[in-house]
Amino acid sequence: MALIDYLLGQNKKNSAKQAKDRLQILLAHERSQAKAPVYLAKMRDEILAVIAKYVDIDDENLQISIDEDNGFEVLELNLILPESRKH
Amino acid sequence: MALIDYLLGQNKKNSAKQAKDRLQILLAHERSQAKAPVYLAKMRDEILAVIAKYVDIDDENLQISIDEDNGFEVLELNLILPESRKH
Repeated sequence: MALIDYLLGQNKKNSAKQAKDRLQILLAHERSQAKAPVYLAKMRDEILAVIAKYVDIDDENLQISIDEDNGFEVLELNLILPESRKH
Repeated sequence: MALIDYLLGQNKKNSAKQAKDRLQILLAHERSQAKAPVYLAKMRDEILAVIAKYVDIDDENLQISIDEDNGFEVLELNLILPESRKH
């Protein structure tokens, strides 16, 4: 399955010892609409706030990218998850 | 980019008229660990609660699957997003 291969493929680039739980979020917005619905930005921010409650987010474990392709703007968030929640 | 192609590919299966904003969440847990960290389930449930605040979730707009591959259990959630938030 392409999506899982991609997700796990990112993992294979590291050594087996570095295998980690991961969270990936993609938010795709069709650009032909005048603008993204306001609720999308609010929902995204609230999702990130939930994640930040449990996980220390820093440059080492988080990658964010925004791509445009085929009429869509895609926000991609990749987070390496720790074995225990933050204190 | 494989991931975006996959996401948009799902869209291409529908007619152009049905192009919709989408949210996709993947949570990959390495199965070699004794069990998934407790916080992962809590975080997942809170993320779903945030989404449910904004979007009516039903069988028509939500697909959830759990796959196992290469030592990982991957929860995949695909949601078609409405143009406006629920009332």
